[in-house]
Amino acid sequence: MYLAALEAPGDENFFTFIKKAGDKLISTRPTAVNLSWAVKRQLNVIKEEYSLEKNIDIVLKTANEIANEDADYCRRIGENGVGLIADISTRKKGKPVNILTHCNAGWLAFVDYGSATSPIYRAYEMGIDIHVYVDETRPRNQGAGLTAWELGQHGIAHTVIADNTGGHLMQNGLVDIVIVGTDRTTYTGDVANKIGTYLKALAASDNNVPFYVALPSSTFDWRIRDGVKEIIIEERDSDEVKYVEGLCEGGIKKVLITPEKSPAANYSFDVTPGRLITGLITERGICEANEDSILDLFPEHKS
Amino acid sequence: MYLAALEAPGDENFFTFIKKAGDKLISTRPTAVNLSWAVKRQLNVIKEEYSLEKNIDIVLKTANEIANEDADYCRRIGENGVGLIADISTRKKGKPVNILTHCNAGWLAFVDYGSATSPIYRAYEMGIDIHVYVDETRPRNQGAGLTAWELGQHGIAHTVIADNTGGHLMQNGLVDIVIVGTDRTTYTGDVANKIGTYLKALAASDNNVPFYVALPSSTFDWRIRDGVKEIIIEERDSDEVKYVEGLCEGGIKKVLITPEKSPAANYSFDVTPGRLITGLITERGICEANEDSILDLFPEHKS
Repeated sequence: MYLAALEAPGDENFFTFIKKAGDKLISTRPTAVNLSWAVKRQLNVIKEEYSLEKNIDIVLKTANEIANEDADYCRRIGENGVGLIADISTRKKGKPVNILTHCNAGWLAFVDYGSATSPIYRAYEMGIDIHVYVDETRPRNQGAGLTAWELGQHGIAHTVIADNTGGHLMQNGLVDIVIVGTDRTTYTGDVANKIGTYLKALAASDNNVPFYVALPSSTFDWRIRDGVKEIIIEERDSDEVKYVEGLCEGGIKKVLITPEKSPAANYSFDVTPGRLITGLITERGICEANEDSILDLFPEHKS
Repeated sequence: MYLAALEAPGDENFFTFIKKAGDKLISTRPTAVNLSWAVKRQLNVIKEEYSLEKNIDIVLKTANEIANEDADYCRRIGENGVGLIADISTRKKGKPVNILTHCNAGWLAFVDYGSATSPIYRAYEMGIDIHVYVDETRPRNQGAGLTAWELGQHGIAHTVIADNTGGHLMQNGLVDIVIVGTDRTTYTGDVANKIGTYLKALAASDNNVPFYVALPSSTFDWRIRDGVKEIIIEERDSDEVKYVEGLCEGGIKKVLITPEKSPAANYSFDVTPGRLITGLITERGICEANEDSILDLFPEHKS
C-alpha cells in the first residue's frame, strides 16, 4: 500500500513530487500516526533551494536517524517495562508470568525490539520465566502469523488463542498482565490500537489485571483530546474478513468463511479510553494514561 | 461427536446399553446443558421391565415431545422478545434497529425459530426494519458460516464482523441491542455461552447497550449458584484454532494460520456474570438475570 502511493515523478520538480508523494503516503493511514510523523519529519528537513543530491543525502540521513531512534526507544521501553514483569515473577515465586498481547508490536513492526514485545524479550533475556498468550488478531491474524512466529524464533513459550478467549482467561486468573502496542495515543491517554484491544482492556479492568500500553513517544498525538470521538478509524476491504489466508498444500491459499453474498465490515482499530489503562510504557519511563502524568513525562508538550 | 459416542450394543441388554450410551453422550458436553437435559429426560422414561418395543415407542414419543416443545418455546421467545426490538424501532422512528449477535442460536441449532434469532425473525415478519451484526465467532466461525447463512436465506439485512469489532461499534452508537443464546444458565443469572460472549457483555455494559440472552428454560441449571466458579468450560482440539476451514477452488479446504509448532488453546465457552445482562428472554416472558426474578418466573424451582 505504501509503495503503491509512490509514482514516478512527472514533469514537476523533485520537491513538488516528494511533497505530493508524502501527502499520499500520509493519507493511507488515517488512524496510525507513526508513518505520518516520519513522513512529516522528512518533509520538514528537505528544502526546495537545495540540490537534488543534497536533499537525497538529508533524507537518507534522517531515515537512519529515525531507525536508530526507534531501536533505541524500543530498547528503553523494554528496560522501563521489564520491572512490571519482574515484580509479578517475584510475587509468583518464579512461577511463569502469563502475559497477554494483541496484534503484532514486535520487531516485525518496529526496529530490533518492538514496543509491546520489548519488555517481554528483556524479561526473557533476564531469565524470568514467562509465557505469552497471543491473540490471533482477526481479521488479518497478525498475532497468529507474526507475533507467534517472532516468539517462536526467540524460543519464548506462547499459546495462540482466538481473540474471544482473553476474557475467560482473565476471569480465571490465567493472565497476570496485558501489554499491547498502539497506533495513536492522545495526550489524554486514549489509545487507538488494533481492533479488539478495547475489549481486552474492558476484561482486564473487570478482573483487576494490569493493562499496559507500550509506545515510543512518536505515537503520541499532541493535538487530540478525546480519542473515542476524534480519532478516525480506518476501514479496510471487507474481503479481509470474508477470506482467511493460510498455508495449504504447500502454498498460500485463501478460504471463504462467509456466504458469498453476505456483506462484511472491516474496522481496523478501536479506541481504548485512558480510564481502562493501568499505564503507558514509553522510552522515558512509565506514566499513567492521563494528561497530567503524560505531560509530566513529556513537559516540552505542555502548552 | 454425538454419534461417535454411540456404539453397537454388546452382550448387555438394551437397557444397560442405552444407559451407558446416554452417560457417554452427556460427557461429550461438560458445559452445555440442553443435551444432558434431553438425554436424562429420555433415560427417565424408559424402564428395564418394559419390552424393547415399548421402550423404543416411548423414546420416539419423548423425542417428538422435546422437538415440539423446543419449537413452541422458541416461538414464544420470539413473541416475548420482539417487543424490545419494536420499542427501539419506535424510538428510532423506524430507522433500522441494529442488533448484534454472537455464534449461532438460530434454526440450525434449535427447532424452527432458534432462540437468539427468534425475536429477530419475529421482528422481520412484523415488518420492522432491522439489521444484524453477525460476530464471525472464532474459532469455529458459526456466526460467519451458519448465522449469516440463515439470515441471508430469510433476506434479513446483516453484516459479518470480526469478533474484535463489537466494542468499537457499541462505542459509536452502531448497536442498539445485543441478543445472544446460552448453553447453560445458572438460576442466579450467570450465562455460559460461546467463548467471547463475556467480552461483548462488558462492551454493552460500558456503553449502556441493552444485552439480552434468549433461552428455553431447559437451558437453566437449577443447581449451580456461581457460574464463573462452578461451570466447567469445555476445551476442544487446538487445531480448531490453528486451522481455518472454508471454501476454496470449489471445495472445502483448511488453511494453517499459525506457525506449525506454535501451541494453541481452544476454550469453547465463557461465563457472563448476571450483573452484565439486562434480561433473559424465556418462553414464559422476560426476567432479570438474578435469582429472585428468575424464580418468580419459574416458581416451581423455588426450594
